[in-house]
Parts: sequence; structure tokens; C-alpha cells
Amino acid sequence: MGLNFRAGETKTDGCEEPAEFSAYPEFDRVRQEVQPLGQLRDSFIVAVDSSGLIVIDQHVAHERVLFETYLRQKLAGKLDIQRLLMPIIVQLPPRQLVILDSIIPELARNGFEVEPFGPKTIAIKTAPAMLKASAVEKLLVELLDGLERETQVINIEALKKKIAATVSCHAAIKINTPLEETKMRWLITELMKTDVPTVCPHGRPIILRYDLREIQKAFKRA
Amino acid sequence: MGLNFRAGETKTDGCEEPAEFSAYPEFDRVRQEVQPLGQLRDSFIVAVDSSGLIVIDQHVAHERVLFETYLRQKLAGKLDIQRLLMPIIVQLPPRQLVILDSIIPELARNGFEVEPFGPKTIAIKTAPAMLKASAVEKLLVELLDGLERETQVINIEALKKKIAATVSCHAAIKINTPLEETKMRWLITELMKTDVPTVCPHGRPIILRYDLREIQKAFKRA
Repeated sequence: MGLNFRAGETKTDGCEEPAEFSAYPEFDRVRQEVQPLGQLRDSFIVAVDSSGLIVIDQHVAHERVLFETYLRQKLAGKLDIQRLLMPIIVQLPPRQLVILDSIIPELARNGFEVEPFGPKTIAIKTAPAMLKASAVEKLLVELLDGLERETQVINIEALKKKIAATVSCHAAIKINTPLEETKMRWLITELMKTDVPTVCPHGRPIILRYDLREIQKAFKRA
Repeated sequence: MGLNFRAGETKTDGCEEPAEFSAYPEFDRVRQEVQPLGQLRDSFIVAVDSSGLIVIDQHVAHERVLFETYLRQKLAGKLDIQRLLMPIIVQLPPRQLVILDSIIPELARNGFEVEPFGPKTIAIKTAPAMLKASAVEKLLVELLDGLERETQVINIEALKKKIAATVSCHAAIKINTPLEETKMRWLITELMKTDVPTVCPHGRPIILRYDLREIQKAFKRA
């Protein structure tokens, strides 16, 4: 039981970054032109650029933005951290307490100051500033659940990315959330500035495209 | 040379009405819910309904609306007709003059009062009110060109539909035309009232759909 960290070892866990990836050949040319039109089901931003129609998953788009911001802040040693008004007390099963114990130093480097608080509980005193306090407990439980399910040795790089991805996921705009046009515009602008605007930290697609030529062909206009 | 009309004969010329046609199973349920978001390339209206994303070809959508309005007015004997401020004088090649002569009565029933004006020219004195005066000459030339290319005998029903479709086409909103939201909303409302909102009088599709479930599946949310 427990986790071993082998620095430098690569593991395929869906958190890895793909190599620089273009959603379509003209993507790098048109990514600055994307204009939001509105939302589908309060979950997907519908937008256009000069080469067609675009659908953006608002949750994973924001996740990608936060993930890169987070890693950049952490690398620069400038992670925004909040001290919680009241420490959050969480009861954990024994196996997860052992896992937690082994990741306390990495959690600390990610802005989570976690201390034992009685035999079965822990106290969380600080967390990354991008998280709402109400999301902190759920995040930690999800992280530990995930690590408990790991059957293979997880390396330190994978752990770092898993923490960053979990924090970004819990801080990101949810689906089923109406967005004002300014918010959509902001999100698209920030997404297009990221290194990998097309794939989320968990490997899910962020952008779907319907090519103008295909649309014209379907309308018998090609 | 010339045209024969055989009443009742059916001809496949792309102008026939398909049988009642639903773009997708839920179409009849959701057709009242369609909400425009904006345009793609000033040519296609991007909209949503509860079952997905919709793209509407603004030209053929308007064509369908006008086509049904036109046939309804004509059937009721209440076709809106305009008297042109100045008759439009058109020079025609001899073959087309012969064709024109054979369709003058049907043109008259469609609001086009056409008279000979010298040996090679004709004068158009009235036209359906939905047409801009500037579109009238082009329309007549296109109609005669089309009839001249016909290799088969054309029946009177096909001719009626061809005239109605040509008038609707020339009166309809063009592609590459920016539309205000109220205009988009009006067009969608009128389109959804038509008998066949999914196929234009020439048989081209009016609506493309991207199903919500397919979008969710593509985002790995299904």
C-alpha cells in the first residue's frame, strides 16, 4: 500500500500533454478570429471563425486555461494561495490517510497546507486561490480516491499534473451555466492563448469544428 | 421549337414537393423552439433548439417562405402585384421570343403583364409585388434560359412551380447579407410555419442539424 514516486518515469494516465496539436490545418491562422455567438444548452459555446463553425465545451476550455495558469504560477514559485477562514476538517479511511501522508509535501507545494487532526481526520488550512472553499474537500477526496484506484506506481511528474488537473477541474466553470457574452469572449481569448487549446488536461477534446466547405457542400453550395 | 403543356403530367425537374418530410424524428416537436444565435459568413443562420445545433441557409429558407406564400396567394386569386413605374424593355433572341409567346397567359396569371415591343423586344408592365423592379429582367431571362434548355415536354404544373420558384428565388434574401437578430427570428418563425421547412422549392436542404447527443459524444460526455 502507498505510493512510490519515480522521478522522470512516464505513465499513460490521460493527463499527459500531447505534442503541439492543431485541430485543423488553418487553426493557427484563424484562432485569433473566433467569435462567440451564444450557448447550446448552457454548456457549449457556439462560435464562428473564417473557416467554419466551432463548438467549445465551456468546462474543459476553462480547465485548460486554469491548468496552464496554475503550472506557470507554480513554476515561477508564485502560486496564488488563500488561507481558509476556518480550517476544513475531513474524515478519511485509513488507506487514504496513508496515501495522504505520502503526498503531503507535494500538496504543500500546491498550496494545500494539510495537517493531522485526530486519528481519523485531517485539517486543510490553505488552498490555491482559484478554488472556492466549498470545492476544497470534494477535490481532496476525489484526488485520494483516484490515487487509491491507481494500480501502477505513479511518478512524481504524473502526480504533479494530476493535482494541477484536479484543481483546474474543480475551479473551472461548470456545464449548465449560462454565460454572458463578455465571459464567453474572455474564455475564448484566454483559451486561444494556451499552448494546447484543443485538448483538456485529461485528454478530452475542447473544440469541435464544422468546416465551412462541408457546410456549403451539405447545402449543395460547393 | 416551343413548349407543349400537358396538364397532369408529372416531370422530375427538381421543383417537385417531396412528401411531408421531417429533418429528424423530434423535428415536429422542437420546431417551435428554434432560437437564432447569429450568422456564419453572413450566409447561414446558426441556431439552437432543445435537441441540438442547427444551421439554416438563409437564402433557401426565405425562398421556401416566399414560395408557399406565393402559391397560397395565387390559389386564392390574391397575388400582390405591382405596376412598374416604367415598363422594363428586354431584348430576346428569336427562340426565347417563341417560348415567351407560349407562356404569356401563365405569366399573366403570375402577375407579369408582358407585351411585344418591336420585333425583338418585349415590355414588362407589371410584376409580383415581392420582387424588386431591378430583379424582374434577370428573372425573366433566367426563366426563359431554363425553359430553352428543357429537352422534354414540360407540363403546366411544372411550369407553374418553376415560375413560383424562380420568383421566390429572386425575391429571397441573398447569401452574404448580414441579418439583424429580429430578421433572423422572423425568418425562422416564418420558415417553421411552412409545410416543408427543411427542403427548398428546388430540392436543396434548408436546415442542417448537429444532434446534441452526437456533440456530447464527441466531447466524451455521453
